[in-house]
Amino acid sequence: MAMETGLIFHPYMRPGRTARQTFEWGVQSSIACDKAGFTSMMISEHASQIWENIPNPELIMAAAALQTSRIKFAPMAHLLPHQHPAKLAMTIGWLSQILEGRYFLGIGAGAYPLASYMHGLRDAKTEFLNEMVRESLTIMEKIWKREPFFYEGKFWDAGFPVEEEAHTEEDEQHRLANYAPWGGVAPEIAVTGFSANSPSMRLAGERNFKPVSIFSGLEALKRHWDIYAEANIKAGFTPDRQRHAVSQTVFVADTDAEAKKLVMEGPIGFCFNRYLIPIWRRFGMMDGFAKDAGIDPAKADLEFLVDHVFVVGSPDTVVDKLNTLFHACGGWGTLQIESHDYYDDPAPWFHSLQLVASEVAPRISLPGQSSIKEPMKAVATAA
Amino acid sequence: MAMETGLIFHPYMRPGRTARQTFEWGVQSSIACDKAGFTSMMISEHASQIWENIPNPELIMAAAALQTSRIKFAPMAHLLPHQHPAKLAMTIGWLSQILEGRYFLGIGAGAYPLASYMHGLRDAKTEFLNEMVRESLTIMEKIWKREPFFYEGKFWDAGFPVEEEAHTEEDEQHRLANYAPWGGVAPEIAVTGFSANSPSMRLAGERNFKPVSIFSGLEALKRHWDIYAEANIKAGFTPDRQRHAVSQTVFVADTDAEAKKLVMEGPIGFCFNRYLIPIWRRFGMMDGFAKDAGIDPAKADLEFLVDHVFVVGSPDTVVDKLNTLFHACGGWGTLQIESHDYYDDPAPWFHSLQLVASEVAPRISLPGQSSIKEPMKAVATAA
Repeated sequence: MAMETGLIFHPYMRPGRTARQTFEWGVQSSIACDKAGFTSMMISEHASQIWENIPNPELIMAAAALQTSRIKFAPMAHLLPHQHPAKLAMTIGWLSQILEGRYFLGIGAGAYPLASYMHGLRDAKTEFLNEMVRESLTIMEKIWKREPFFYEGKFWDAGFPVEEEAHTEEDEQHRLANYAPWGGVAPEIAVTGFSANSPSMRLAGERNFKPVSIFSGLEALKRHWDIYAEANIKAGFTPDRQRHAVSQTVFVADTDAEAKKLVMEGPIGFCFNRYLIPIWRRFGMMDGFAKDAGIDPAKADLEFLVDHVFVVGSPDTVVDKLNTLFHACGGWGTLQIESHDYYDDPAPWFHSLQLVASEVAPRISLPGQSSIKEPMKAVATAA
Repeated sequence: MAMETGLIFHPYMRPGRTARQTFEWGVQSSIACDKAGFTSMMISEHASQIWENIPNPELIMAAAALQTSRIKFAPMAHLLPHQHPAKLAMTIGWLSQILEGRYFLGIGAGAYPLASYMHGLRDAKTEFLNEMVRESLTIMEKIWKREPFFYEGKFWDAGFPVEEEAHTEEDEQHRLANYAPWGGVAPEIAVTGFSANSPSMRLAGERNFKPVSIFSGLEALKRHWDIYAEANIKAGFTPDRQRHAVSQTVFVADTDAEAKKLVMEGPIGFCFNRYLIPIWRRFGMMDGFAKDAGIDPAKADLEFLVDHVFVVGSPDTVVDKLNTLFHACGGWGTLQIESHDYYDDPAPWFHSLQLVASEVAPRISLPGQSSIKEPMKAVATAA
């Protein structure tokens, strides 16, 4: 089975973009990815960050629902401490029905203190937020089951009523609407890990959630899989690398030189220079990359990232880079490409996404698995 | 100023419709109404009713946002006790920005006990739910102002942080995203009234909200306006009938006979016979109509409604019926047409909506106001 391609849409829109531009860019991106053959699009939820300016990923999914046909959507992540779990459970269920199952559910506790503050959580510790996440999940799972309950929780109360049996045709008109997720079962749940000893990866393993790694260097990535797999086996499951998604900055053009120039001088470079590199430096997020390359983290600049961390180049170069990574870490199932603000000129970006899906991904598979599509493609090229 | 036309989408989908069909029908209806020149589309929010199967009106609005250009949207209503006000305030603000102001906000406390139960409100009295509504509004207004606060409420806590001044370009990258409503001010708020002595109409008057009446007979409609106007004047405002919206069952075809037949034998008749007439009888909602016509409420059946309560007929007949009503009650600003399930065959329904907007509404204006469009139309017809 070849590597799959996904988009992760934070969306890193430059300050000054309007809500409508951000929203439009989300819908346009979903349509482009669906056409290109991407299997998933994850959309963030943030109450506070100007560069990550989407408070409701479900609104973009709804706008894309009737204009896409294959791609799956996931909020990455719905922040469970910020909303009533009964309300959210029905939103998730209804949207997954609208998408006829093209849906999975990223969950999180919220990483930004200012966003927590807005939702009434002042100085909330991680453990406290995680307790809210667990209670929210418990309630959502009960709502999705549609069996009678009333739960008085520490943070929320919720219930599902006893539905009276319908004896007459008139009774039938008063049945409860069904907002359980598509298929009547809980959607697949995903969590994101970043730090080397990610507690999210342990949770994912224990609960058999889909693990999503934000790429932060080879060592951390290998640790993520080890932590996940160990917890997963211990909980009685069989870890499957195909479920592992890894998010990365990826840009493909027809030649290496063009790809590098478009990244350095385009929206990706702009975002990294202004926003992400200063954050990565401040919070030590450059350390893993610098270690991989054997350099001083203070010397890691945009060009270093483009040459040594991002996956940038022609299709052949990018295949080589990914295969090298795959052999070093064991590989993963989905390359989740970090989206950037190409709103003003989408052509090079959509071309890059198209190249990844059609020229790169079919040539990458988990080590030990043979690629299915490559020989067919070779024949087609020869003919 | 001529009467405006709106749609109110509950949506009265027959049991068995899928979530996707309901959602599609909402989006198709919004596009058709926008093209026809409707000024507003209200969409309900219900957690429990199979015939009223939309839990998230904002998802339909998002899907319609880029495919419509003139029509305004309103949830009618967001049920404030069911969700965290900080989260909802940001959803409302962001969506109103996406719609570039084509938005107003219906609010409610939730009329269905089963829906309240799901959201943890067991045996909640109306006064208790109304207290939640007031606290939610207080918090939402604070969030929309974007000034620092922290509020510890009876039902929810919420806050807005102190935003540090940006001294450097790097600081600028960490500004808070702005999810205040379009224009930076609270959206217009609307509430719905049904019963003759509607407390919602009093609240609307006191707070200068937009009043929306569900038509339940001439006497109740006149009372609605009187209650609203009295409270509105007492609070220091000037009541404006143009802001009053009245929802009604309306169907227009080329002839009276065709219109009646399409209603009796089509989706409207199906919904009333199965769902609405039994409810109206059980809860005394037929009484006002029967009183207007001088008949026994038990004898009020579908044909009675079509002939005496709904606004059904050719354009000329419907103009006469509405002008008669307008002169009897003082008139209103927007005729909010109750949507029905024409998903299988939209043509007669969309034709009806088109006729109301183009042939009927321009010929109706508040008593004492002269219609602007009528003389022009008369000239065009003569020529």
